[in-house]
Amino acid sequence: MTAKSKIKKGERPLILVTNDDGITAPGIRNLIEVAREFGDVWVVAPDSPQSGMGHAITVNNILRLKEVHNKPDEVREFACTGTPVDCVKLAVYRVLKRRPDLLLSGINHGANNSINVIYSGTMSAAVEGAVENIPSIGFSLLDHDVEADFSAAKGVVRTLVRNALEKGMPEHTCLNVNIPKASPEAIKGIKVCRQGQAFWEDDFVPREDPTGQTYYWITGKLNNQDKGEDTDIWALEHNYVSVVPVQFDLTAYHAMATLNSWDYED
Amino acid sequence: MTAKSKIKKGERPLILVTNDDGITAPGIRNLIEVAREFGDVWVVAPDSPQSGMGHAITVNNILRLKEVHNKPDEVREFACTGTPVDCVKLAVYRVLKRRPDLLLSGINHGANNSINVIYSGTMSAAVEGAVENIPSIGFSLLDHDVEADFSAAKGVVRTLVRNALEKGMPEHTCLNVNIPKASPEAIKGIKVCRQGQAFWEDDFVPREDPTGQTYYWITGKLNNQDKGEDTDIWALEHNYVSVVPVQFDLTAYHAMATLNSWDYED
Repeated sequence: MTAKSKIKKGERPLILVTNDDGITAPGIRNLIEVAREFGDVWVVAPDSPQSGMGHAITVNNILRLKEVHNKPDEVREFACTGTPVDCVKLAVYRVLKRRPDLLLSGINHGANNSINVIYSGTMSAAVEGAVENIPSIGFSLLDHDVEADFSAAKGVVRTLVRNALEKGMPEHTCLNVNIPKASPEAIKGIKVCRQGQAFWEDDFVPREDPTGQTYYWITGKLNNQDKGEDTDIWALEHNYVSVVPVQFDLTAYHAMATLNSWDYED
Repeated sequence: MTAKSKIKKGERPLILVTNDDGITAPGIRNLIEVAREFGDVWVVAPDSPQSGMGHAITVNNILRLKEVHNKPDEVREFACTGTPVDCVKLAVYRVLKRRPDLLLSGINHGANNSINVIYSGTMSAAVEGAVENIPSIGFSLLDHDVEADFSAAKGVVRTLVRNALEKGMPEHTCLNVNIPKASPEAIKGIKVCRQGQAFWEDDFVPREDPTGQTYYWITGKLNNQDKGEDTDIWALEHNYVSVVPVQFDLTAYHAMATLNSWDYED
């Protein structure tokens, strides 16, 4: 089965846009620009950077929501004090007048391939869309620069949005799309991949505050032992756009037989 | 392959304990008590409640770490300003002198079965352990009461820790263990399950601050359309302890063929 909204004749698709870099980030501005070519765009996005927020939701604190750009003929935009997943939930259950036909998250400034999918606020917003069974796509560009060139990324967004709207998406699934830092001409194509099994080797850099107390900044490097040519890591290293279909059923079905052999008697 | 640490003869297992309710919560105190029966226990846990933090890590802010209970012959305890996943990373890369043989997270005050696994800080700490290939188990008791009775839960922890230390755990896998609110006698047994496909129907309750501005509290109810008798939902409703093996490869392999049929030419 596919998750595809029934868009009425003459009606434009309703597209929800969010991100984790915050509503003023260049990445989301570029995403909105492309989304407007395809439908009516509503934006509910964090009012401040929310990188690394994963699938966090705000349960111990309040949420504020503020319309920041009300030109009803154009794009309606709302800034939220919460996480990217809060933004999706607020959009679906409070802001939008009907369920969106498509959810787009990003364009993130920096990679979200491989294991980064679980730390990424950009991707968690898309996963939350999948939980709601809304066709959802997260986009990330492998360039942290605030002056990053989004021209190749915008072409990729166009191609994937067109497919998602025409064909629908497998049920309860979203896409993790990463775009190499390269010119449109240098990109070799789009490859459907699996999540590469690379992991962070973390480091905590100590600093001292003015009172002499130590604090830490998280840092680290990604170690890749997974040499498969079917991974998103391989695709990006070879200048392909990687597309990984993502699900949220975390059950390790292959481990169930082993666990059924454990001794559960006291 | 199984992830099992080679514990030297005469050496006690090194057990890392964390949670998301904070280092002073009754749940973690009960977990530490049982863990001490099996090995040397080090605790690195949040200094404040971190429920719903999912797989968030602190990348835009600093982390502080403070030893709060230094009795070297007993349990070493560290409180951290970060999320549960930050705690695991700090423990593995900064605090512990060697890799732990086991990671235990919880005992959470409240359910983390079904879709809650992706929002739960308790379970994200266990998933981070699985990323590090440390045998990891997250425990949750279906009772939010601060006076909750942990006696049944402690028996369950004992059974699972014994199995995990003796048999090891499937590689890069952790366990999501939920315990019904019931007396030890009323619990029917332990069932290996899949993650039930229930979803939150969210609601945002508006309130007004003293200046007249509206803010929201997230709330909602869990809707279960998944009637399978192999789910964690069914097990808990029937007074079984649910054990779901959890992985972090989110690739929706079943969706790859569909995506390979999309048109990626401009």
